[in-house]
Amino acid sequence: MALSRYFAPTYVVFGRGAEEECGTLLRENGATKVLIHFGGGSVVRSSLLARVEKSLEERNLSFVEFGGAKPNPRLSLVREGIELYKKEKCDFILAVGGGSAIDSAKAIAYGVVYDGDVWDFYSGKSSPEKVAPLGVILTLSATGSEMSNSSVITNDEKTPNDKVGCNSDLGRPRFAILNPELTFSVSAYQTGSGSTDIMMHTLERFFHSGERFEYTDENAITLLKSVWKNTLRALKNPEDYEARAALMWAGSLSHNGLTAAGNPTGGDWSCHRLEHELSALYDVAHGAGLSAIWGSWARHVCDTDYSRFAYLGWKMFGIHEKTDKEACIKTIEAFEDVFRSFGMPVGLHELGLELSPADIEALALKSSWNGQRVLGDFMKLGHEDMKAIFTEANRR
Amino acid sequence: MALSRYFAPTYVVFGRGAEEECGTLLRENGATKVLIHFGGGSVVRSSLLARVEKSLEERNLSFVEFGGAKPNPRLSLVREGIELYKKEKCDFILAVGGGSAIDSAKAIAYGVVYDGDVWDFYSGKSSPEKVAPLGVILTLSATGSEMSNSSVITNDEKTPNDKVGCNSDLGRPRFAILNPELTFSVSAYQTGSGSTDIMMHTLERFFHSGERFEYTDENAITLLKSVWKNTLRALKNPEDYEARAALMWAGSLSHNGLTAAGNPTGGDWSCHRLEHELSALYDVAHGAGLSAIWGSWARHVCDTDYSRFAYLGWKMFGIHEKTDKEACIKTIEAFEDVFRSFGMPVGLHELGLELSPADIEALALKSSWNGQRVLGDFMKLGHEDMKAIFTEANRR
Repeated sequence: MALSRYFAPTYVVFGRGAEEECGTLLRENGATKVLIHFGGGSVVRSSLLARVEKSLEERNLSFVEFGGAKPNPRLSLVREGIELYKKEKCDFILAVGGGSAIDSAKAIAYGVVYDGDVWDFYSGKSSPEKVAPLGVILTLSATGSEMSNSSVITNDEKTPNDKVGCNSDLGRPRFAILNPELTFSVSAYQTGSGSTDIMMHTLERFFHSGERFEYTDENAITLLKSVWKNTLRALKNPEDYEARAALMWAGSLSHNGLTAAGNPTGGDWSCHRLEHELSALYDVAHGAGLSAIWGSWARHVCDTDYSRFAYLGWKMFGIHEKTDKEACIKTIEAFEDVFRSFGMPVGLHELGLELSPADIEALALKSSWNGQRVLGDFMKLGHEDMKAIFTEANRR
Repeated sequence: MALSRYFAPTYVVFGRGAEEECGTLLRENGATKVLIHFGGGSVVRSSLLARVEKSLEERNLSFVEFGGAKPNPRLSLVREGIELYKKEKCDFILAVGGGSAIDSAKAIAYGVVYDGDVWDFYSGKSSPEKVAPLGVILTLSATGSEMSNSSVITNDEKTPNDKVGCNSDLGRPRFAILNPELTFSVSAYQTGSGSTDIMMHTLERFFHSGERFEYTDENAITLLKSVWKNTLRALKNPEDYEARAALMWAGSLSHNGLTAAGNPTGGDWSCHRLEHELSALYDVAHGAGLSAIWGSWARHVCDTDYSRFAYLGWKMFGIHEKTDKEACIKTIEAFEDVFRSFGMPVGLHELGLELSPADIEALALKSSWNGQRVLGDFMKLGHEDMKAIFTEANRR
């Protein structure tokens, strides 16, 4: 009995000025003292942090600031957050930022109610059984972490680093505040990288084994087309509210399970796993790492089912060719053109990396856990497959 | 500050045999004694009820059967359910059926934890502040009540009856079990009526005032197209699993808020309100009542914004005309053709009603609460508008 599950309980408040409601939402969720977790200076410079704190003060909420979240958020920072939350006797975590602040906040939320080491949840030693309450004010459309069950942390206490995810429904935030205006100042590079991540959350779900549902596929394709179109709009005019709004909704819906509705396996996820290994070693932007790998993954796995790629290419780009194989190749190239139009790399060289054969072997060994781990669902990947994909990506 | 809210916390389990998980889901949700609420004999005849009870027994859950839910579910039955739940010291309600059983179960769930009269929540005298936990096993794709905040009850203690809704996020079920196979035996008429209701939940959201978001519109149109196509498939072959699956997902997504994402008003809802008055007086199938009114509503309101109808017609049916007004008329006709292809009426005569001028005046007076209530959002409707719409529908 292969069942599919869909669970997206996060309460979303959307629109201009939505962040002004955060004090009210925190109160409704029982908060009295809030750990506000954020990244670098942009939320300070933009005065967003000040507005958030004003909203908390108006509802008589105490708070502690905890900045410093970085892309590929670090375990060492998570540990600091856990200590501070406990020391200050907080009872709620508010992440203000993008996926890095949210993922780091999720790890803190698991850690503060756990007697053991929070890394247990990422190493696979244990699963979260409870969590501190978490809310989000989103400033970057990308990871979908504001509605997803996922949190990805980089263990900087290990050499080389490990970058791994913990998936638990407990990690889905209580609320998410989505104001597209908060993403007007996102740079072109981060916009392109974020949009690539959004598309990949749907593409990784689109390629799966077993039964398929056309209605779910159509929702996936509607989302992919919207991200494509609205990313180009946002790159041209960063203050295009409707384009930023589309990217924000698409980011949340792309990773809340909607585009896997009915699909019991949940998708393939090989590219995400391979990218995590790549950025653990080379600290690249997640979306850029994904686009640098995807085409090489696609060329390696496509003979599993050319027709799946051909169907996608027809729906997305109107591609018609004599054979599914030819249509498949055109579809892969068309997606690479989309990523290029976002300013993203479609190979490791374009990402600024030049790997030696030894580097590739090390990366493949890390990805396959020395040959012990198989990845994927559309096609299962062993160590040699991973090596072939990295080799191909390195050639581009 | 016009904000939009999206909240769909129901845990969905989807697939063949999903109902076998209901004992486990009830346990996970803290149930010990369950009121099983259902409609007529079909869940008994199909052995679904027996399978559900077996699943409960396997998890050592006690239960009490409470059947009798009918289309346009009655307040008198709700009161019986409240008494039985209390007498039997239940702590969970499981609705097994379509919208009637679910809406009736929601009313019971509000009533058992309220000291006053449950009708207070429907008459507008009070709002629910708590609710007993509720789960659903769905057997009809139609009302979307399995994920919605809505419950509609007919007060059969009044003459004429009142049919009104209570909207509260507390009414969203804890879990919903969706097995498309459970809808194989739904009759052609109920399939067509259910699909009309699903389309209307998205159409009523599509027509709204204020800011619009193309990505949300595209999700709406993807849903409408899928329901159109898959209803025809299911009518041709009632055991077409993929078609039944598409209708089931579309039913849930059409009324969980997805197709109003970003829209602060939440939609127009005039046709639903007018249909509630119609079926309070004449006890018609909800979907059939909606299709019998929609075209007349559309013709009455369309000069508010022809371009909105033209856009819908272009996306749905590829309609191109010289002017938006011409495209609008073609779009309304095309939707009426869709409803006809579902076996649904597009006027009151086709619904089997012939109303006298006095009947229409009575219906309009009831709809406008003797001229005290204004309906709608795309266009505000007063008493004279409602009378004009019913008159037009009665002409067809």
